[in-house]
Amino acid sequence: MRLADEERVDWLRLIRSDNIGPRTFRSLLQHFGSASAALEALPTLARRGGATRPIRICPRADAEREMETAQKSDATFVASCEDAYPHRLATIDDAPPLLAVRGKLSALARPMIAIVGSRNASAAGLKFAERLARELGEAGYVIASGLARGIDAAAHRASLGAGTVAVLAGGQDRIYPEQHTDLLGALLSEGAAVTEMPFGWEPRAQDFPRRNRIISGLSVGVVIVEAAKRSGSLITARMALEQGREVFAVPGSPIDPRAEGTNGLLKQGAALVTEAADVLAVVEPILGQRTLTAREPDHGAPSFGAGEPDGDVRDRIIGLLGPAPVGIDDLVRLSGSSAAIVRTVLLELELAGRLERHGGGLVSLI
Amino acid sequence: MRLADEERVDWLRLIRSDNIGPRTFRSLLQHFGSASAALEALPTLARRGGATRPIRICPRADAEREMETAQKSDATFVASCEDAYPHRLATIDDAPPLLAVRGKLSALARPMIAIVGSRNASAAGLKFAERLARELGEAGYVIASGLARGIDAAAHRASLGAGTVAVLAGGQDRIYPEQHTDLLGALLSEGAAVTEMPFGWEPRAQDFPRRNRIISGLSVGVVIVEAAKRSGSLITARMALEQGREVFAVPGSPIDPRAEGTNGLLKQGAALVTEAADVLAVVEPILGQRTLTAREPDHGAPSFGAGEPDGDVRDRIIGLLGPAPVGIDDLVRLSGSSAAIVRTVLLELELAGRLERHGGGLVSLI
Repeated sequence: MRLADEERVDWLRLIRSDNIGPRTFRSLLQHFGSASAALEALPTLARRGGATRPIRICPRADAEREMETAQKSDATFVASCEDAYPHRLATIDDAPPLLAVRGKLSALARPMIAIVGSRNASAAGLKFAERLARELGEAGYVIASGLARGIDAAAHRASLGAGTVAVLAGGQDRIYPEQHTDLLGALLSEGAAVTEMPFGWEPRAQDFPRRNRIISGLSVGVVIVEAAKRSGSLITARMALEQGREVFAVPGSPIDPRAEGTNGLLKQGAALVTEAADVLAVVEPILGQRTLTAREPDHGAPSFGAGEPDGDVRDRIIGLLGPAPVGIDDLVRLSGSSAAIVRTVLLELELAGRLERHGGGLVSLI
Repeated sequence: MRLADEERVDWLRLIRSDNIGPRTFRSLLQHFGSASAALEALPTLARRGGATRPIRICPRADAEREMETAQKSDATFVASCEDAYPHRLATIDDAPPLLAVRGKLSALARPMIAIVGSRNASAAGLKFAERLARELGEAGYVIASGLARGIDAAAHRASLGAGTVAVLAGGQDRIYPEQHTDLLGALLSEGAAVTEMPFGWEPRAQDFPRRNRIISGLSVGVVIVEAAKRSGSLITARMALEQGREVFAVPGSPIDPRAEGTNGLLKQGAALVTEAADVLAVVEPILGQRTLTAREPDHGAPSFGAGEPDGDVRDRIIGLLGPAPVGIDDLVRLSGSSAAIVRTVLLELELAGRLERHGGGLVSLI
């Protein structure tokens, strides 16, 4: 499966429009069958959802300009429905509809293991990350990480030859930290840099946790080498768990604050890693047995017009919503409406910027 | 229960006689009802077992002299059948029949946790051992260890006030290492030093692993702080497992060889410890629920004369034995003799120095 150029521009416009995240994108696509149909319906949907001002839709010219910029930088947009899209990432709930990729697309087709950890890593942590990345690389795995200082950079460097993928929190032209621009350049020859963020996007603090779901989503398992309490690496671990990925942690001295997070993960049941074999023993049976299939669309995709909610129904559903997350299934049951109608109302609210989706089928009003 | 002085001397003579270890001691006591009766029967039993020269029985004078030496050094011999004997230690297979104790006998009645580890410990390991020992001491536990350099000494030092027990591999007057003579003196005021070895016994290499079973036997759980591969601390961990004690291990960097043993234990299922609460969470329910009872005598104690094996029976049983360990139950079944007869023949062989007991009811010819 491969999108036509025109369609790709529509995908890009849709995901770059206001109030549209990966989950909403997926709903819209299911609902309307195509990105262009969804784009057309957006203003009406948002108005019905109670938007106070018109929803900002990404203009075609902007999307085309981003496409051109990408081309000039040797970047490609790969859509989640396409064969070139990393299979494992496609299975997560909030997979980016489009990934901007530089480097070797083929690296994304190989099984990946993420190695992440603290920026101010210890010498022992850095040495171990290097050793592990090298050995997993030799075993045929691509190493995914976040290009950060410390553990991430050590893992990338040790797997330059075998292939490594950097997941960015900003645009392809906004490398963070800047000092790793050369490292990024080097990893493109056997690996790749990927991001869901637009060209020109300067990464903000909140973009890093969001980015971390892609690191774990790409991977069969995530190895946390060193992590303090409440660190970004633990967010990656939590996301990995939510995505059903294996979580590995490297033990460290209880005296070392950089091991608090990893020792905590071990207490919670993460697999202990002191050598590559520990990781391989867990992931190889998974790769051998499980055939990955892209996520099934939820509860069957209703076609457009399967029912347009009238004002009463909309009010009833909105009345059931509040700041506390509730299940969509409960909304269907309690409102007495069809699942298609409930989903449509939720979409409208979402596009109006009034709905938050929490994963696990939970939603709340903002 | 308390032994009469005369009986205590007989116990000492019996355990100080040749070819008599804790298991044989127990069998003899079960068989003959008292140490004095066993002492009387020894020459005959050993001759029947095929001893090539008369068995050396500890002379009364020697035992009395050891008793006097003990008294002068403020040491007491506590017998495994006495109330003052540490209850938990009494439950192991090869509990020392007599413990020479210096210091506070009452410390032996309190719940203990062992903290052991490498002699050439890291600064982090030492610091952690101290912190853990102090916190467990504050929680009411006595800390058991082996008085070795490194982790052991750190654990003793940090629990001097709360109470700590040093288990020696040599006699009470042969402190090893010598530099810890002052530490030992200091721990006697709230804790104790215990050993099964005779006064004057200089500890040899093989006495340390043997001693380790007492460290774990005394304790509800054993915490291994740092341990290289194939180190003495891992022997203590193995013995703890065999004795049904909890095994805890402190994680460390995979780069640090002193953590290889502990990380290995963690992979094998030892509980991970980064703070005292991790230990308490496991041992407190055990202490709350399990009422310790001294080990039941095996299969009922046959009285003397329950059957004396004739030569044929003895030959048949010996014929079933070889260098490979076999179960006593199997010997009973295969020989067609009663359990009492088989046990008597085994005792004779043991006293003749021809039998090895492996624990778990397994025996082999030497």
